[in-house]
Formats: sequence, structure tokens, C-alpha cells
Amino acid sequence: MAKKRNKKAHKKIGSVPGSVIYTGNKESKELFIEVFDYNHDKFLEKQLNKVEDTFDFKLNDCVSWINLNGLNHVDSIEKLGLHFNLHPLVLEDIVNISQRPKIDEYEDYIFLVLKMLYYDGDENIISEQVSFILGPNYVLSFQESEGDVFDSVRDRIRQGKGRVRTMNADYLLYILMDSIIDYYFNVIETLGYKIEDLETDIFLGNVENTINKDIRDLKKEILRVRRAIFPLREVISRIEKHDSHLIASTTKNYYRDIYDHLIQVSENIDIYREMIWSLMDMYMTTISNKMNEVMKVLTIMASIFIPLTFIAGIYGMNFDYIPELHFKYSYFILWGVMIMLFVAMLIYFKRKKWL
Amino acid sequence: MAKKRNKKAHKKIGSVPGSVIYTGNKESKELFIEVFDYNHDKFLEKQLNKVEDTFDFKLNDCVSWINLNGLNHVDSIEKLGLHFNLHPLVLEDIVNISQRPKIDEYEDYIFLVLKMLYYDGDENIISEQVSFILGPNYVLSFQESEGDVFDSVRDRIRQGKGRVRTMNADYLLYILMDSIIDYYFNVIETLGYKIEDLETDIFLGNVENTINKDIRDLKKEILRVRRAIFPLREVISRIEKHDSHLIASTTKNYYRDIYDHLIQVSENIDIYREMIWSLMDMYMTTISNKMNEVMKVLTIMASIFIPLTFIAGIYGMNFDYIPELHFKYSYFILWGVMIMLFVAMLIYFKRKKWL
Amino acid sequence: MAKKRNKKAHKKIGSVPGSVIYTGNKESKELFIEVFDYNHDKFLEKQLNKVEDTFDFKLNDCVSWINLNGLNHVDSIEKLGLHFNLHPLVLEDIVNISQRPKIDEYEDYIFLVLKMLYYDGDENIISEQVSFILGPNYVLSFQESEGDVFDSVRDRIRQGKGRVRTMNADYLLYILMDSIIDYYFNVIETLGYKIEDLETDIFLGNVENTINKDIRDLKKEILRVRRAIFPLREVISRIEKHDSHLIASTTKNYYRDIYDHLIQVSENIDIYREMIWSLMDMYMTTISNKMNEVMKVLTIMASIFIPLTFIAGIYGMNFDYIPELHFKYSYFILWGVMIMLFVAMLIYFKRKKWL
Amino acid sequence: MAKKRNKKAHKKIGSVPGSVIYTGNKESKELFIEVFDYNHDKFLEKQLNKVEDTFDFKLNDCVSWINLNGLNHVDSIEKLGLHFNLHPLVLEDIVNISQRPKIDEYEDYIFLVLKMLYYDGDENIISEQVSFILGPNYVLSFQESEGDVFDSVRDRIRQGKGRVRTMNADYLLYILMDSIIDYYFNVIETLGYKIEDLETDIFLGNVENTINKDIRDLKKEILRVRRAIFPLREVISRIEKHDSHLIASTTKNYYRDIYDHLIQVSENIDIYREMIWSLMDMYMTTISNKMNEVMKVLTIMASIFIPLTFIAGIYGMNFDYIPELHFKYSYFILWGVMIMLFVAMLIYFKRKKWL
Amino acid sequence: MAKKRNKKAHKKIGSVPGSVIYTGNKESKELFIEVFDYNHDKFLEKQLNKVEDTFDFKLNDCVSWINLNGLNHVDSIEKLGLHFNLHPLVLEDIVNISQRPKIDEYEDYIFLVLKMLYYDGDENIISEQVSFILGPNYVLSFQESEGDVFDSVRDRIRQGKGRVRTMNADYLLYILMDSIIDYYFNVIETLGYKIEDLETDIFLGNVENTINKDIRDLKKEILRVRRAIFPLREVISRIEKHDSHLIASTTKNYYRDIYDHLIQVSENIDIYREMIWSLMDMYMTTISNKMNEVMKVLTIMASIFIPLTFIAGIYGMNFDYIPELHFKYSYFILWGVMIMLFVAMLIYFKRKKWL
Repeated sequence: MAKKRNKKAHKKIGSVPGSVIYTGNKESKELFIEVFDYNHDKFLEKQLNKVEDTFDFKLNDCVSWINLNGLNHVDSIEKLGLHFNLHPLVLEDIVNISQRPKIDEYEDYIFLVLKMLYYDGDENIISEQVSFILGPNYVLSFQESEGDVFDSVRDRIRQGKGRVRTMNADYLLYILMDSIIDYYFNVIETLGYKIEDLETDIFLGNVENTINKDIRDLKKEILRVRRAIFPLREVISRIEKHDSHLIASTTKNYYRDIYDHLIQVSENIDIYREMIWSLMDMYMTTISNKMNEVMKVLTIMASIFIPLTFIAGIYGMNFDYIPELHFKYSYFILWGVMIMLFVAMLIYFKRKKWL
Repeated sequence: MAKKRNKKAHKKIGSVPGSVIYTGNKESKELFIEVFDYNHDKFLEKQLNKVEDTFDFKLNDCVSWINLNGLNHVDSIEKLGLHFNLHPLVLEDIVNISQRPKIDEYEDYIFLVLKMLYYDGDENIISEQVSFILGPNYVLSFQESEGDVFDSVRDRIRQGKGRVRTMNADYLLYILMDSIIDYYFNVIETLGYKIEDLETDIFLGNVENTINKDIRDLKKEILRVRRAIFPLREVISRIEKHDSHLIASTTKNYYRDIYDHLIQVSENIDIYREMIWSLMDMYMTTISNKMNEVMKVLTIMASIFIPLTFIAGIYGMNFDYIPELHFKYSYFILWGVMIMLFVAMLIYFKRKKWL
Repeated sequence: MAKKRNKKAHKKIGSVPGSVIYTGNKESKELFIEVFDYNHDKFLEKQLNKVEDTFDFKLNDCVSWINLNGLNHVDSIEKLGLHFNLHPLVLEDIVNISQRPKIDEYEDYIFLVLKMLYYDGDENIISEQVSFILGPNYVLSFQESEGDVFDSVRDRIRQGKGRVRTMNADYLLYILMDSIIDYYFNVIETLGYKIEDLETDIFLGNVENTINKDIRDLKKEILRVRRAIFPLREVISRIEKHDSHLIASTTKNYYRDIYDHLIQVSENIDIYREMIWSLMDMYMTTISNKMNEVMKVLTIMASIFIPLTFIAGIYGMNFDYIPELHFKYSYFILWGVMIMLFVAMLIYFKRKKWL
Repeated sequence: MAKKRNKKAHKKIGSVPGSVIYTGNKESKELFIEVFDYNHDKFLEKQLNKVEDTFDFKLNDCVSWINLNGLNHVDSIEKLGLHFNLHPLVLEDIVNISQRPKIDEYEDYIFLVLKMLYYDGDENIISEQVSFILGPNYVLSFQESEGDVFDSVRDRIRQGKGRVRTMNADYLLYILMDSIIDYYFNVIETLGYKIEDLETDIFLGNVENTINKDIRDLKKEILRVRRAIFPLREVISRIEKHDSHLIASTTKNYYRDIYDHLIQVSENIDIYREMIWSLMDMYMTTISNKMNEVMKVLTIMASIFIPLTFIAGIYGMNFDYIPELHFKYSYFILWGVMIMLFVAMLIYFKRKKWL
Repeated sequence: MAKKRNKKAHKKIGSVPGSVIYTGNKESKELFIEVFDYNHDKFLEKQLNKVEDTFDFKLNDCVSWINLNGLNHVDSIEKLGLHFNLHPLVLEDIVNISQRPKIDEYEDYIFLVLKMLYYDGDENIISEQVSFILGPNYVLSFQESEGDVFDSVRDRIRQGKGRVRTMNADYLLYILMDSIIDYYFNVIETLGYKIEDLETDIFLGNVENTINKDIRDLKKEILRVRRAIFPLREVISRIEKHDSHLIASTTKNYYRDIYDHLIQVSENIDIYREMIWSLMDMYMTTISNKMNEVMKVLTIMASIFIPLTFIAGIYGMNFDYIPELHFKYSYFILWGVMIMLFVAMLIYFKRKKWL
């Protein structure tokens, strides 16, 4: 992922600053625009393919959520930007999908970038950039492709559940961000399970070298999630503190709530970070314990049989005159001695708790 | 625990913000309400089952402590909230048991969330969320279930020990919190014992792989305790600094005392943290020492007997012409040589301090 | 590199402060001066060999970029400094190539030092110091030798791409710095690849001691890059915050953009830092795993054959009376016993998962 | 120690806040009060057993140092507190010997708690709490038991050495604290010696498991000393900064001097901390080196004699037709071969620097 | 060194604060005073043995540098202090050679303490305390003994090189400090070499236990240098920020230059610190690699020859009926089998990359 992101950033070397260049995956995706337009007694939902069709929603007296999927359609985004009066740097940031979460306040809108995190079917974290423009009575959202974490928001608007239909665009932005942060909990929860699985695995004595890779992959995931989430705290805190006519002071309580959630997520990430970092130590000691066990087997076998073999060797010598060889019971006496030695060894190792 | 908490948070994905949903264990618990109503010359203690019965205590001229157990009774809590004029977000936070310790100041009450920590019979740390509402002459407390750390407070109110009966609700809140923090000392004390036990265990040479698990479990306990206690420092410090008509300046001295205690607890936690973290190193070196010992036994046995066996092998060869075989005392001379070699080896290993 | 830098600094011991002494590589390099002089409708590009030829560009009404290569030509730089009214300390800093990135604001110009980082053909990071003087309508830049990261800037000026021809010198400085920072992304991207390669290498079981050197070299590279980039954040942040008549407030938006990029680069560096630091642990566990494997082979071989050899030794003894020797099928029975022992051993090691 | 302190704190669970309960060792100690009363021309020294006898010293026009030993005499301390007008919380803190170093400023006195550290005969650090009350012309000091670090102060007062007899109570407090801090130097010096001894021990190859315990004990000592000393910096810094009529501005210079000393002590503690923490690494590598040595001996012995034994085994076989057995010089040739092999092995191991 | 410093500090226990006691090496050193007295057209250099001879230089209209060597001559220093009106605490600090770098501003002079660092012939770092008094037109400097880093300053004054003869005493102090800091670069450069040497040593496979000591010694050196240099940053920064009539604002630019250098030195120290700290890891892995190599040799030898020896042992048995013994070519067939086994083993180990 780190690799991918850099490769994208790299593509821009030498480009003119302020130019709107999509830095994501170039495979052509359909432009898909979704509009929710509502107030306490009206509600309209539309799927569109042309940005021009959204222009009317800017000035009507309903709250509008215009959700655009397909950042590769740079032309359409530029047209939209022109109509909604967006600064070129904003447009550049929307299509450059390697932004850090940030907030930029302009005269008549607020620009927000953040990362949507969710697990795909194969337990890989998907990190997708979402940009929001909060205007007086509309929220524009920009996503790389279809598929997001906003289904509960759509349902709530459709069914008029909760306060959303009676509130303004600032509240709409809040519930959108709240949905994103809910999924953060989901992501770190899964991370927690993965760490515990790995822990159990190591504890049960799995010392395969693949553990190394698993630990590292988890480390990278945590660093990645961390980088998506930590800067967001500052963003939210700025929303809370800043006086903008676009965000009503009553709505700010809700943003404070988001902030509390983010702090909680951050704390969990840091705890997981510590746990995963110390997994390596646990792994190391487990390997050493295994080796200890191996060494004990070797030492016990060698310590018992090498001396006995030596004794057998003695009486295999061909000296003309070895008196013991000619006594009748020598052989049996020797067996006795050897068995005693054997037992003594066993007792010794038992005492040392190696057996 | 981390796992459990996340699972709970997860349940809320997609729920409408501001809705009062109990996130704890769903097994039905009885609603149990306890009321202490007192001033310097009156005292009343009551057990109730209906919240409505507590409404009269809001306005009387005594100090009232209304202690509600059973957060699953969301309806009752909402009724209470309505009567005591609590904000919906406050109610939501009361029943969401995965809050960070925090303080929210409202017009006519202060809302506090913190964690009660104590050991159950099996030496497991129980972390239970307690929420307090401090009003002009009452304290509401909300607990998940019966069983808490407030028995000494109850006794003191009943018996009129100390200042409690002559002071206002702010002082009542103080002694409730003081009880909680007293138990923090208890918890970290037990953590300290556990660390020392583990230390002794390792030092005495126990290198079982279960040590790994014990160390990790202790680490997790410390992280958990830390997360419950550290944010509280800021909470108390805000009580101290903030000018609220609900907390008399004379009472603030007592809160400063709590603050001092919290700092002490925090320092101890950090010390234990360091001790437990470095246990892993100690464990590692102990394993290595053990292995060293094993290797020494092997090396001594092998180094002594392999050369001797070689010598015996030599005279077991069947060459037609080996002159030594035919001397009369060869065999005895050989024994002499071998014993000398043996002794030389012993001396060598003795010198190396391997014996 | 650290060694080299210090050696240079060392050369100055005892020198008079404020004296202009070039601390870089003394091999004589040609003085090479490049001038770009332009406004929205004019454009002039010149290559010069004498500083005196640049003096006219100071006062004309175009934006001029005077790019001087060859810091060993101290005399020429002093002449230039005199004409452009530069402070002696500034000149000293320009030719002392071991500066930290910094900004010094003077009455009628701003002095900036930073580090250009790029990979040469052999994947070595080249760090070259660039100093900028931003005057009212000119930018002076000073490089140690030819070869830099500004080709895209040259093209843009030549072709009038983007805003550059319509903007002032402060914007020119911005695009120059932007080019430098674009290359920072490039450098850390390559660092990222190197770390991943090393990681794969270790994971695949390469435990050669050279890994040690590779890890250390990467560590040093990261420390070096870090030292070049981190102080720059403060520099840019000061440009943003400071009120200078030399930098228009509209241009400051662009500097904020650079600042965002720098934060991104810094975060990546810190992530790579963590990854490379923990590589050592991974390497350690891989070595231990290898050793474990070696030990297992040894233990299996020894545990199987040492007892068998002992048995063979027994029946090689020359006692006069060993009854087994004279039974007809002894030899075959013995083989049977030995094969059974062998198989039992194999099963035992299979169970222990050593095979 | 951590264990002990907690046990004490534990005893207080459930006690009424503000109650004066001695938390130290309950064995009965004699109350012992010492009074030094002096000005530039008078001097009086008294030993008393009843606090009532000290009451006259409060108001006379000399500087009085009233030093009370025996915190278990709670009644006497409460009487003293009443006469000197001390707040109940102050009295509670005086007898609760698990205080963090702190300063509390009251209307007409300053209350200071700090830790006296010194080594007893057996090289154990003794940490004893000392509380000071600085009044207009008196200093009260409270110690758990007799025996302290103030002998040089006593001498100085007796003999009128230095400035003490011409200065006020604030200076007396200063020289008392200065004595305490002088002993801090002593304590960390001894810690330094202990670390170096341990270092030498490890370096000389002592890899006994007891080293583990020694390192841990030193770690704990350092953490303990650290906890006693670090909060004091803030205390002194508050004396310096605060405007109190009790401390003359000319005396503040002296407190700044103490502050400088404390910083020095703190720096040393942190250095020792680092040194002791990294001792574990040194210990680990030393163990590994030892093991390496052991392994080499084993490998050399085994590698030399196992092949030779094999050769001897070959010619111990009883095949009917082994031609070599019947050559006359076979035996001697074989010896030659074996000696050559032996020497070759030695050379090989020499080359590998294992010998 | 740490040991030495503490020992010195220890000597002072119980001494009266403010008393001027030399804490350094008591061996008697000659008092040696050097005076440089100059302005833009006059210059005088003198060597003196009595402090009284320097008194005239206080009030003349030249800039005077009075450099006193021999801190054991406490009487002379006290006389000088009296004449130059120095505070007793200043005198105490001058002769107490275990000061942290610090600055104290007095009415009519500034008192500065810092550490001179340089390598002696045997590559040991010498740390010597230098104190400066900056008066209106003089600089007093105090050194423990002759030999310092100021020769270039002397030359510059003598020869009138640079600005020194035209500037005031504040500039003189600057070039003195600049000389000291130049040597800091020298010291850390040498530290850098030492680290690299050690690194190369370890990399080339030197795993002697002495490496442990070398690493530790370097760590201590770095900690020591760090402690001498880091507090100086604050000192210089206070000179820069403070408004003193003794330091002209034009001279402050030069102090900012020193500050930049100090930051650079500090950064290098921290980098070296990291490098040296991670050397231990490298050492550890190198040891483990060595051990791995040893184990491989052992395993290969044992794995090849133990089975072969077993086979030879089989045919050394004395059973009456072993059919193979009587076939004519058995012996040669056996050799064939053994050689095949041997080769198979070699191939196996080759495949495992152990050969």
C-alpha cells in the first residue's frame, strides 16, 4: 500500500501545481451520481449520469446530498467545481487520492478530506478517500468508486428516521462522518481479533517463519489505519472550535461526540500497536523455548548413550590380555553396570526437570 | 476485554445518533434504586423499584443520593432523565458502557462518567462504568448492576461519621469518587503483587511457555487499568479549575486531594508498566541461561567420552599387526591414559567454570 | 556521509566567523550561470560564465531567476553578494554546504537554505544544498554543481505552462521548492522499495551477516533524509505565518500546499523508520528459526543413531561368554529390534512436529 | 517498597477523608522533639518530650526550628497543629507517609512534603518522608523516627557557621532542604557504583541468573529514587516563582541554586536509567557469547573425533576379506592418516578463529 | 567520569552554601593569568602571576580579556571577585567544576558556565569547565588548568584578523564560545569515526565480549557529551532573547549563528545515539549468525559420520552367524554404500544451503 501510494504521488513529478489530475487507478469507471434532496416534508432520490443535472439542487430550499462516484471523470468534476464555485486547489485535492485527512475553510463552503476504511471479503482493509464540500444547504461528496459505508444514512433519509430530515446540511455532514467513524470501530475490532489469533497461534507453539510476515503485515495495517485516523482528530477539533456560519452551534455538540469517538479509536489503535509490537518478543521467547526443548532431547540422548557406547568400546578392544573378558559373568555384570548408569542419568535429568 | 468492548460498539453501527441504547450485557437485571436523603439532622434510606418514586427527592431541601442499578432498564432511565431535565446525549452516554471517563458541564448539572475497578473473587479485574449527575442538592449515580465500592460511603452517611452529613451534594460526589479511587490503589497493589510473583517465578527458573501468556495478560490488564484511570486526571483537573456554582470553592480542596491521589496511582501504573515490559527481557535471558546450562552438560559429556571412545575404537581394529595389542600391560596402561584424559578434561571444564 | 559532513565542518576550526569559505569538494568545477528572465509576454533564457553579466537583471521589470552552479567560485559569489546587497553571514552560509535547512529574513530579501535529494544511477541518495535568495522580482539560486531537479520548472517557464509567467518571483520560488519536494516523494518511495526488498529477503530465509549491513545502511539513509526534510517543515511554516512584503498573501496558499506535502513526507519517513527498526527483530527471529531447524536435524540424527550404535557396540565386545552371540537368528532379531527403534524414533519426532 | 507503600495506602480504604491516621510502621516509637531557637546573638537548643513545651517558641522574636520525630504520636501532632493553626488536611498529609513531594501554600504558612533518601549500613536506600511548615519565624519539621541528614545544619546553627544565624526562617528551610539534596547526590553516586560493579561483573563473564535479579533490583531502586526526586523540581520551581511574604526575594537565589542541583541529580538519574536499562542487552550478548564458546568446544571435539572414530570403526569390522588388515604397515599408515586429519581439522578451526 | 563528578559533589556534603570551595583535582597547579587588552589601534598581551596586576584593566577604555588558569587558587579568585564586584554565589560556581552549563544575568555583568570538550592524545574526551564573566568592556574567563581551545582567538586578536579588534567585549565572548563549539564538532566527528569502526568490526564478525565494553564506553561518552552540550542551547537562546545592555543587538546575529551550530551538533549527537544504541542489536544478530555457523558445522559432521559409524559398528559385531561377513565383496560393497550415503548427505546439506 505504501508502495502504491508513492507510485501515485510519483506520477505527478513535474506537473503544474493546481492542475486537476486523478492519481488513482486508471481503469475506466462509470460516472455515477446520486442525489438526495429533502426537507422535513419532502424527499427526492435520483440516480444521474451527468453532472449538469445536479446544478439545480444548489439553490433550492431543500437540503441536498450530491454523491459523486468516479474520480477519473475529471471533466465532470471540473464542471461541478465551476458551478459550485470551488477553488482549483480544492478540485486538485479531490482527485489526488493520496491526501492526508484535512479541513480547509473557504468563504462559502468547507472542504473536508478523509479516509473511509472497511474490510473487503478477504479481510483486507480497503482505504478509500472521500471528500466533502459543505455548503449552506448542500453536501457534495466525492468517492473513487461505488460502494461505501453510507447505506444506513440513505435509509435514515429515506425513512425519515431520527432527526436528519428536520436538520440542515451540517447535520447531514455529521451523520455521514459518523457512519465513517462507526466503520473505524469495525476495522480496529477486526484488527484486535487478528492480533489475538496470532497471539494464540504463537502461544500454541507455532514458530513457523510465516509468523514474522503475519506480524509485519499487522504492523503495517495498524500504521496505515493510524495514518488515516489520527489527523482526523485535529480536523474535527477544528470544526468544533472554528466559528463558521455553515455549522450551527447546536450541531457542534454532535461533532464533539464524534471527537470523543475518535479519541477512543485512537486509544485502541495505540493499545493494539503496543500489543502487536510486543508480539515479536513473545515470538522470540517461544522460539527459544522450542530450541531449549530440542537441545534437551539431544543432550539427554547423547549424555546417556555416549558413555555407554564408550564402555562397550572398551570391551571390543583386541588386547591379548584383558582379564575381565574371561570371567564368566562379566557380560552380565557389565549389563548391570550399564543399566545402573542409565537409571542414574534418568534420575539426574529428572531432578534437573528436563524430563 | 478489548474484544468485548468492540463487539459492543459494533452493535451500534447504523443506529441513529442520540438514541438511548444499552450496549452492555443483555441478560435481564432487576431495576434496583437506592435513595439516601439526609441533612445534618435528618436521614432517610430507601430501596425502590420504580423511578417515579424518586422524583420527590429532586426538590426537597435535603441532600439526596439516588443510586440506580440496572442500565438495561432504558425506559426508566429516560423517565428519570425527563424529570431531572437531562440532555438526550447524556442519557445515551449513561447507557453506552464503553465511554471514556469524561466530564460534561451543563447549565444546571454536571455529568461525569468514570470506571469503577475492583477484583472479583478470581483475581480478575472488573471494570464497571458509573455515571454521576451532580445537581444543586442531589447526586444521581448509574451502575450497570448491583455491587459496588460505595459501602463505606453508605456507612458514613448512615452513622453521620465525618463531615458528610453537614456538607452539600458536591461533597457527596467527592466521597463517592474518593471511594472509587481508593479501590484503584487496591487494584494496582494487586497488579504489583502479580508482577512480583511472575518475577520470582521467572527468576527461579520457570521457563515454561505459559510465562509468555502470563506476561501478556498482565500487560493487557495494565493497559486496561491505565485507560480507565488516565483520562480521569483531566476530568478532575477540570472540576478543580472550572467555576461552577455546583461545586463550592471550599470543596475544591478535596478534589485537589483526589487529583493528587490520581497522580500517585498513575505514577505507579507507569512504574508497573515498565517493570512488566522489562520482564520479557528477564524471561529471555533466563531461557538463554537455561539453554547454556543444557549445552554445557552436552558439551562436557561429549567432549569427555567421544575422544575416549575413539581410543577404544582404535584397539578394536582387526589389523594383523598392531604391536600394542600384544604387550602384557597395554590394557592397564590404556586405562591409565584414559583416566588421565578424563581428569584433564574435568580440570579444563572446572577452570572454564562449566562445572 | 555523516563522516564526510563532519570532516568538512572540521576544516573550518579556527577560521574567522563571517568569512566566506567553501566547505565542499575542492575539485575545480566550472562556474555556470543560467538566467531566466520573463513576464507574461516576454521570455529570455541565457547561459553565462561571468557574474557581472547578471547584474542588469536585478532592476529590470521582469521576473528573473539567476541560477548559479559552482560554489567553489567564492569570488564570483562575493561579487554577486555585493551587487545584490547580501549580508556576509548569508554568503558564508551559501558556500558552507553543511547547513541545516533554515530561513533568514532580511530587510529586502529572504534567504532560504534547503537540501535537494535525489537518487543517482546506483541508487545512492545524493544530497545537495540549494540556497535561495528571494528578492522583489528575482530569485537567486546557488547549487554546488550542475544537475538538479528543476527541469520541469525550466520547461514550464519556457512554454508558459501553468501560472508561472503571470506570477511574481514568490511564485517562482514556490515552484522551485515544489520541484524539490516532489523529489522527496521519489526518494522515500525508493526507500520504501528497499525496505520491502530487504524484508522479502529476510523472510525468504536469507540470514547472511550482510543483512546487518543493509539494515544499518537503510537506517542511516533514513536518518539522513529525515535530517534534510524535518527542519524544512518549520521553514515553510514560518513563510506561511510571517508577514513579508516579498510574499503575496495569495501565494501563501501555495506554500500551505507545500507544507501539507512535507507533513505527508515526514509521516512516511516515520513509518519507514519504524518498519526498518523492527526489521532487526524480524531478522533476529529468522536467524533463531534457522538455528532451530539446524538443531532439529542434529538432534534427530544423533537421537536415532547414537542408541543404535551403542547396541552394535555391545555385540562387538569380546567377552568369552555372551550367550546371544551364538544363537542362529540373533543377528536378524537384532536388526528387527533396531528397525523398530528407528521407526519408534521417527514417530516420536513426527509427533513433536520436528519432521 | 512499592508493595509496602500500597499496603499502607490500602489500610485507609473506607476511612473518612481528612482524618489524621498514621500510615507508617505501627511499632511504638518515642516522641522526640528538638528545638533550636536562635538569632544573631542568642542560641538555645532543647530536647523535649511534650509538644506543649514548644508552644512558646511560636511567637518569640527568634528563629525557631522545631523538629518532631515520631509520626505515630498523632495526638501530639494534632495539638501542635491546633496551636500553630494548621489545616486538618495538612495534618493528615504529615502523618500519611506515602505522599508525593508537594507544596501547599496557605495564608500564614507554607507546607512542604519531601523525601529524605540515604543508604543504611547494608546499602539499602532508606526513604523517609519529611514535612516542613514554614511560618514567619519558625520551621516545623516532622520525621517518622530519629536519625536524619540534618547534622551539618545542627552544627552550623550551634557554631554560628555561615549565614544561618543572621538570616530568617526561610533561609533555615533552605539549608535543611539543601542537606536533603546533598544526600540525593550521595544516593545516586552509590547507584552509579552499583551499576558499574554490575557492568564489570557481566563483562567479566558472570552470566549467573542472579544478574537478572540484580539488574531488576537496581531498576526498581532507580524508579523509586526518581519518584522521590522528580516531583520536587516542580515544588522548588513554585517556591522560586511564587510571591510569598514568607520567603524573601534575596533568599530565592538560594532556592534557584537548589533547583539547579535538582536538575543535575535528575539528569544523572536519567543517565543511570539508560545505563541500567541497556545492561540487559549487554547481559544477553554476554550469555550468547558464552554459549557460542560452549558450542565451539563441542563442535571442535565432535568434528575431530567423530570422523576418526568412524575410521577406527571401519577396521573393527569382521568381514572375512578386508585386504588392508593384512598389510604389515597398515596400522601405522592409518595412524598417519588420522594424525593428518586431526591436524587438518585443527588448521581449519584455527582459520575460522574458533581456536 | 560520572563516578568522578559525583565523588566531587560528595565532598561538599555538609559544607556551608555560598562558600567558595574548589571541587576539582587538588594537585597544586600554578596560577597563570593571561591578559589581552586591545582596541582597533592598540594591542597589549601580558602573562601575569598575581591577580592584583589585572585590576587596572577593568576601567580602561580598551577591551580586555583576562584569562585565569588554576581554579585551585581560591584566594586569588576571591580577590578578583571582590574587585570586579562578583556575587559570592558566582565565585562558588566558578570553582565548583561540576556545574551544568548555565547563564546568570546580574546587574552589571553576565555569568556563563560551559564545558570545553576536546580529545587528548589517547582519544579520551577531556571535559573542562570554563566560566565567563562578560562586563561592559572586559571578559573574564576561568579555566581549571592551562591548555584550551582558544589559540585561534589569540592569533586573531594578535594579528587583528577579522572583526575582533573593531568590536566590543560581547563580540570577544562570541568568538571564544564559537571556538568552543567548533571543537564540539571535532569531538562528535571523532565519535562518529569510533562508531563506524566498531560497526565495521562487528560486521566483519568480531564477536569478542570486549565489543560489549566498547559499545558501553561509547554510549557513556555520548551521554556525557550530550549532557555538556544540550543545556547550552537554552543558554544561547536566552542570550539571544534577553535584552541586556551588555550585548549589542548587532552582535546577537552572531549568537544566533552559534545557536544554529549547536542545533546541528545536537542533531548529530542524537543520530549517533541512535546508531550506537542499535549497534547492540547488530552485535546480537552477528553473534547469533556465528552460532548458527558453528551449529551447522557440528550438525553436518555429526549427521554424516554418526550413521556411517553405526554401519561400521554393525559389522564389528561378533555374532556367530552374520552372512554378509563371508561374501567376498561385502567389504567393497559396504564402502560403496557408505560413499553413496556420504554424497547423499552432502547434496542434502547443499540443498539446504548449509554448505
